[in-house]
Amino acid sequence: MKKHNFNAGPCVLPREAVESAIEAIRDFDNTGIGILEISHRTPGWERIMKETADLWRELLNIPDNYKVLFLGGGASTQFFHVPANLLNKKAAYLQTGVWAKKAAKEAKFYGDVEIVASSEDKNYSYVPKGYTIPTDVDYFHITTNNTIYGTEIHEDIDSPVTLIADMSSDILSRPVDVSKYGIIYGGAQKNVGPAGVTFVIVREDLLGKVDRKLQTMVDYRTHIGDAEKDRSMFNTPPVFSIFVMHETLKWVKNLGGLEAMHKLNKEKAELLYNEIDRNKMFVGTAAKEDRSLMNVCFVMAEEHKDKEAAFMDFAKAAGMVGIKGHRSVGGFRASIYNACPRESVEALVKCMQDFEKQF
Amino acid sequence: MKKHNFNAGPCVLPREAVESAIEAIRDFDNTGIGILEISHRTPGWERIMKETADLWRELLNIPDNYKVLFLGGGASTQFFHVPANLLNKKAAYLQTGVWAKKAAKEAKFYGDVEIVASSEDKNYSYVPKGYTIPTDVDYFHITTNNTIYGTEIHEDIDSPVTLIADMSSDILSRPVDVSKYGIIYGGAQKNVGPAGVTFVIVREDLLGKVDRKLQTMVDYRTHIGDAEKDRSMFNTPPVFSIFVMHETLKWVKNLGGLEAMHKLNKEKAELLYNEIDRNKMFVGTAAKEDRSLMNVCFVMAEEHKDKEAAFMDFAKAAGMVGIKGHRSVGGFRASIYNACPRESVEALVKCMQDFEKQF
Repeated sequence: MKKHNFNAGPCVLPREAVESAIEAIRDFDNTGIGILEISHRTPGWERIMKETADLWRELLNIPDNYKVLFLGGGASTQFFHVPANLLNKKAAYLQTGVWAKKAAKEAKFYGDVEIVASSEDKNYSYVPKGYTIPTDVDYFHITTNNTIYGTEIHEDIDSPVTLIADMSSDILSRPVDVSKYGIIYGGAQKNVGPAGVTFVIVREDLLGKVDRKLQTMVDYRTHIGDAEKDRSMFNTPPVFSIFVMHETLKWVKNLGGLEAMHKLNKEKAELLYNEIDRNKMFVGTAAKEDRSLMNVCFVMAEEHKDKEAAFMDFAKAAGMVGIKGHRSVGGFRASIYNACPRESVEALVKCMQDFEKQF
Repeated sequence: MKKHNFNAGPCVLPREAVESAIEAIRDFDNTGIGILEISHRTPGWERIMKETADLWRELLNIPDNYKVLFLGGGASTQFFHVPANLLNKKAAYLQTGVWAKKAAKEAKFYGDVEIVASSEDKNYSYVPKGYTIPTDVDYFHITTNNTIYGTEIHEDIDSPVTLIADMSSDILSRPVDVSKYGIIYGGAQKNVGPAGVTFVIVREDLLGKVDRKLQTMVDYRTHIGDAEKDRSMFNTPPVFSIFVMHETLKWVKNLGGLEAMHKLNKEKAELLYNEIDRNKMFVGTAAKEDRSLMNVCFVMAEEHKDKEAAFMDFAKAAGMVGIKGHRSVGGFRASIYNACPRESVEALVKCMQDFEKQF
């Protein structure tokens, strides 16, 4: 039976990227050696590293004064690398979920932290608005998409101070004005590849301004290096994850880039949210204006609460995978990232309609 | 033409592990979803995580009071995680190469560092002996195999203080008495898998003894977690790299474990070193008693220095890959890790003999 993969990350990847990965494992770049077994210092690999950074630059229209890095350790590691590199006295954080909260916690190792607004009062079901970004801080940190709660900041914020964004779960889902940000970072395992690599897009002039000395691996300048061929190559990079990222970026480009991607994502999300709003058995959990295009969270309507397990079984039987909501929200979550085909969203909508017909 | 892969890492992997990886990318654990696209919270994956740790325990006979962690960021990241977690006042380091030197450099962020001995005077071509390990230090750090220079510490050292070892390039090549170590760590990309995952074997009672507060991702206790199913799962682990590690460990076990592996490694290394010693065109660079079983470094003999490029071309034409020596040693380096077949070593030996016959 055909499976429809709604995992929250790691998640479905473009078929083309998966097939390329398999081919490269058999033989990378006609070397007679597989991608898992090549040296990261072979010219073919250095070319992939450069092309991957160039694809990022092209897709996001990244200005020249930014560098693109591919690191290990996940976004959680960036939670402390960002303040280590940028925080002298005080930083501001927008608390839109537990990951945003975890990011703020790590900043406290390096200075004062002001939470400018939080939606914890309503289990992070909305994005706070009307807050004022303080001007006496080194930066303002946001989490643009909150995977667990299905909320998203849909537009680039105008910030009077350096804006830092964890875009782990919505990067490359829409065009972004990179020039409005100081750093954009995230784990790859939603929209840009398999688990195991973290992207960091950093405006270079922000670095080297803190008083503290930085451990070699923590200092972004280590990974920027002196020459492009050394970028993200201070130590062995996560070769295979970067390769699949490269193939995923190529797929986005071939689809028409981020404008086209955004259109497809809006269509998919609309399809599913429309069904949630129409179908009286289900209720969306996120504030409508903050609904994520990536993670669609919903629960059974109050009068159908007893049917949650039944719908889960029904959906599983129809091939739906990974639609269980995070324990802190409950119910269901369909993650419909870039590579999730419209066909899967249609299958889930049909599943919700078929379930409704039973009652 | 058949290629013989002597890359220093990432490097050749067992064919069985590579084939399993491809199968799992197509369909993991009969889920209908590939390994690159599954959630790290699926039961099948939790089983692989547990089995991988169990295989480590079985192969290395790891005592119960040690935990096995799989992290991102490479051994270079452990260079500062180790002192962050263990160093209160002073640590001792044995400087057997540039990576050992880099490890010591990071420790200085956390306390005093004593270099008890160094072989930098002779370009790290030997392992210092006759040094005294100080007893007023929190730990003594060694690098058991020096990939660049082809030297290796062949036996487990008796240390009066906690012994820490970077075993990136000889882990699982021989039996090790883990109980003699406080922490053993390393990048996977030589003997245990592709790039992208780092193993840390840590004696749990050593943790929590430093005064400083630790960033969440730096603290080993974060990754140990409260339950086995959460181990190395604080954030998304590098799923695919761990999967290939799992398959590689199974291969080692099926070959007969580390005693058998050690025997095969000694035979392969003997074959190559014997040829280097016999063939008057080549000279080994490492002190004989410290010769690595993993990385075999050699240069042209003085009177044949002019033939270095010729031999490189000759070897390439015969299918040898990755035998160029590191720039700081020059000449040639054949990395003959666990998964390098004896057949490849024989091919290289034949290549050296054939080259000799030309003159």
